[in-house]
Amino acid sequence: MSMLLLYGLHSMVWAQQSVPRYGIYEITLSGPAAGNPFANLELSATFKQGDKTYRPEGFYDGEGVYKIRFMPDREGTWTYTTHSNYAELNNQTGALLCVESKNRGPVRVADTYHFAYADGERFYPFGTTMYEWAFQPEARKLQTLETLKGTAFNKARMLAVPPYKPYYVQGPTRLTEFPFVGTARDNFDFSRFNPKYFQRLERDVQRLSDLGIQVDLILFRPYDKGQWGFDTTSDDTNRRFIQYLVARFAAYQNIWWSLANENSYIKHLSDEDFDHYFQLVQKYDPYGHLRSIHNADRLYDYNKPWVTHVSLQYYNAVKVFGVSPLLRDIYKKPIIHDEINYEGNSESRWGQLSGEELTRRFWIALTGGAYATHGEIIDNGWIGGGGKLTGSSPQRIAFLRQIVEAGPAKGLTPIDPAFVMNAAGKKGEYYLYYFGDDPIKEWPFVLPVRDLSKGMRFQVDVIDTWNMSITRVPETFELDTPTRYTAADQHRRVVKLPGTPFMALRIQRIGDAANQPKAKVEDEL
Amino acid sequence: MSMLLLYGLHSMVWAQQSVPRYGIYEITLSGPAAGNPFANLELSATFKQGDKTYRPEGFYDGEGVYKIRFMPDREGTWTYTTHSNYAELNNQTGALLCVESKNRGPVRVADTYHFAYADGERFYPFGTTMYEWAFQPEARKLQTLETLKGTAFNKARMLAVPPYKPYYVQGPTRLTEFPFVGTARDNFDFSRFNPKYFQRLERDVQRLSDLGIQVDLILFRPYDKGQWGFDTTSDDTNRRFIQYLVARFAAYQNIWWSLANENSYIKHLSDEDFDHYFQLVQKYDPYGHLRSIHNADRLYDYNKPWVTHVSLQYYNAVKVFGVSPLLRDIYKKPIIHDEINYEGNSESRWGQLSGEELTRRFWIALTGGAYATHGEIIDNGWIGGGGKLTGSSPQRIAFLRQIVEAGPAKGLTPIDPAFVMNAAGKKGEYYLYYFGDDPIKEWPFVLPVRDLSKGMRFQVDVIDTWNMSITRVPETFELDTPTRYTAADQHRRVVKLPGTPFMALRIQRIGDAANQPKAKVEDEL
Repeated sequence: MSMLLLYGLHSMVWAQQSVPRYGIYEITLSGPAAGNPFANLELSATFKQGDKTYRPEGFYDGEGVYKIRFMPDREGTWTYTTHSNYAELNNQTGALLCVESKNRGPVRVADTYHFAYADGERFYPFGTTMYEWAFQPEARKLQTLETLKGTAFNKARMLAVPPYKPYYVQGPTRLTEFPFVGTARDNFDFSRFNPKYFQRLERDVQRLSDLGIQVDLILFRPYDKGQWGFDTTSDDTNRRFIQYLVARFAAYQNIWWSLANENSYIKHLSDEDFDHYFQLVQKYDPYGHLRSIHNADRLYDYNKPWVTHVSLQYYNAVKVFGVSPLLRDIYKKPIIHDEINYEGNSESRWGQLSGEELTRRFWIALTGGAYATHGEIIDNGWIGGGGKLTGSSPQRIAFLRQIVEAGPAKGLTPIDPAFVMNAAGKKGEYYLYYFGDDPIKEWPFVLPVRDLSKGMRFQVDVIDTWNMSITRVPETFELDTPTRYTAADQHRRVVKLPGTPFMALRIQRIGDAANQPKAKVEDEL
Repeated sequence: MSMLLLYGLHSMVWAQQSVPRYGIYEITLSGPAAGNPFANLELSATFKQGDKTYRPEGFYDGEGVYKIRFMPDREGTWTYTTHSNYAELNNQTGALLCVESKNRGPVRVADTYHFAYADGERFYPFGTTMYEWAFQPEARKLQTLETLKGTAFNKARMLAVPPYKPYYVQGPTRLTEFPFVGTARDNFDFSRFNPKYFQRLERDVQRLSDLGIQVDLILFRPYDKGQWGFDTTSDDTNRRFIQYLVARFAAYQNIWWSLANENSYIKHLSDEDFDHYFQLVQKYDPYGHLRSIHNADRLYDYNKPWVTHVSLQYYNAVKVFGVSPLLRDIYKKPIIHDEINYEGNSESRWGQLSGEELTRRFWIALTGGAYATHGEIIDNGWIGGGGKLTGSSPQRIAFLRQIVEAGPAKGLTPIDPAFVMNAAGKKGEYYLYYFGDDPIKEWPFVLPVRDLSKGMRFQVDVIDTWNMSITRVPETFELDTPTRYTAADQHRRVVKLPGTPFMALRIQRIGDAANQPKAKVEDEL
């Protein structure tokens, strides 16, 4: 089939000849519709520009239509050639013009423990959890999107496959589309995907992208309760599912791959299975989107090379100070506490946090050099189906995000974590102390010694993390000659605090009394 | 050389023909003394009994003497044949009779998170740190051994190679023997080991074994301060050092291999180097003694398959509750907090703990399903050179050991750790709650629901961990019908406590009111 003929058949392609950087270019091809077009399909395309080459997978989109999606990351002309075991899909060639855009591209790991967009702009994840929002009626989805616009959340954890619930098999919320062809356990055909299901899911991913929200898309989940069979599919089906999902979604700039939610509750999948599945995602995703897995009672080994960051469900790690630095040291990757219990009034104990406690856990995570993810289950709302947020933590999380974004560009780094459990920032420049429950009344101005020297001057803000106020302390503090471990204000002044819980201090360097040599400090635990 | 001739030359061998189980059998052979007998030596022996075979390495012991040591683990007759690239050491054969003994053999991992001797007897490590005791004058060593007899410590961390200190190069404490031939930086011959040095170290390891104390022998250490060159030896030297050390010490039943102390401070060794060194230890040690490595500011990946247990220096992990369960889940191996700061009055902040605080950290470790190691630096004593213990924590650690040894045979397991941070034991049978600093006055009798059912009866001991008292509560508590998460006393009674810190509760099942079906509980975070 010539390019001209192709364009003639699929006029959409003309419109896509020019594509924004990090947008989606789509090759659409016609091919066989009979038999099982999903079976044994090999389809991909090589996109080239100068020394750069990408080879995304293609997929069957139903009704004789085959697609290959591409996310160009460099402006200018890209050429492509398709590869397929079907003659009519093979060796198609073409070109596209990638043009400047405001897209920032996929989020990557930056500076070991943090994140940045492909264009270099930093990304500080402040996520929320809305597992099932994509399975809701359209009105509810629109409400969810409206709600998100009013929050600071920039990442959403969501399932790619619905969990079984009676709510989804009867009444007005009955689901009619599933990832596989079929409508019930006894008629699912696991050898055929349902393109309509995925087209809808793509639209939802795109709508989140339009709001600047990263999608932590969960590939496998338990929760089937022996009903649909989606969590007991064969290894062969799982591998085809991964290939199909990655072929469809990898060109979305805002995709993160979450291999599973509560992986160990999927009883028939072992960690070795997930090893293979991670590697498959790596193989099919030409752009290297972020990859992790979310645990239940058996922790996957996040040290494995195909895991880009830690996606942890371990409540203790955010209930007390000092654990995130340990996790950073263990994994040497970004730590996201992706489930820290939910603000809510659930009958389940994992959904009974006050807004104060959820906010406290966020602050403990952040001042440990890690990140956290919000969740709410009030009157059974939000984490399941989205809708409205009625909790008190989202606005405090937004407040925290403002502080983090105004902080060191490279994120918060624990400062002297072997002996100081509640401080992070950037040595010599910026210190964020968080006091949690402690109704602290005064704080002696004494900093861990590293990168400090006599004469350095600091301004201090007293932050009420719950009432969302920032109060500048009138005095400027100036360091005396440092001692072995600490550097104190020359007048041994203290910072006064109101004696209420949930307070923090922001300490920022504003200049020096004079040029002073820095203290020489040895590594020492 | 015939066996008879061999025996004639080395009459000691006759005395060793019969060797206790887990004792040391030693083949002694004569060979070349000229040149460098360490260079290119290949020497080992195959010991056989029925289907069992061991092939320990041999070593040159100086003055033309070559040795191969064997620790038989089964009674009865073992035969052996030697293998060597030196004709006179090759193909020597013989037999020994292994006889019953009270030796328990090497300590192994048991039940994933705990330890047991080879004979099956459980081993609960309550270690101490005496890095340099083996480099002290004999009188001081004897004092150290006397001190240990009066403690409950059953494991000692000690260096195989002395750290550089002025104290070791001048005056009466000047060292005259080193691991390598030579006496100072400019004359060490790293191609030759000094057998006399190792003979002395062996005697010290044996003396600890005679006291029932495991030796956590540290192979590599920093602390050379650019003086002797022991922490900048070449990879080739390091590999020969490992082979030599393992050949000499693997037959000691009480040996544990600690690949390094504060590994990252040995700047010229990477984690990849330690990967190789671990594998070498594995290769040369036919008995599979325990293997770990102790960190400074870069954590080795304890998930690697050659690491048998975690040997951690991470103070936060024992300052707060709830971290050891996380470490267990991350590593799925026994967790030993091998450095938790020291009781002492050091000028260094790592040596300034009160006895109360060190004891508190021990209890937090143990009630997290982990273990901890003691250290003391009072007036500069103990962790360096041994001698006397003057701190207040050793007797409290001994008290804790008694409680642990009287507890569940398989050790303490965290109970409901996602929601209860301070309880360990054995579900349905035994619960040890620890309250740390909290001056708790009463504790409602409510247990996590798993393995509990209505009618179960429990007795309660109030434990004052500091004053070392155990007070039985007169009442017997009996469970009401469990709810979703908890089972409470049928009369909703509380346990009274004195309102002082450092208290614990021991709750033991003593029978049931009647046979009652157990509650069915689902896995649920």
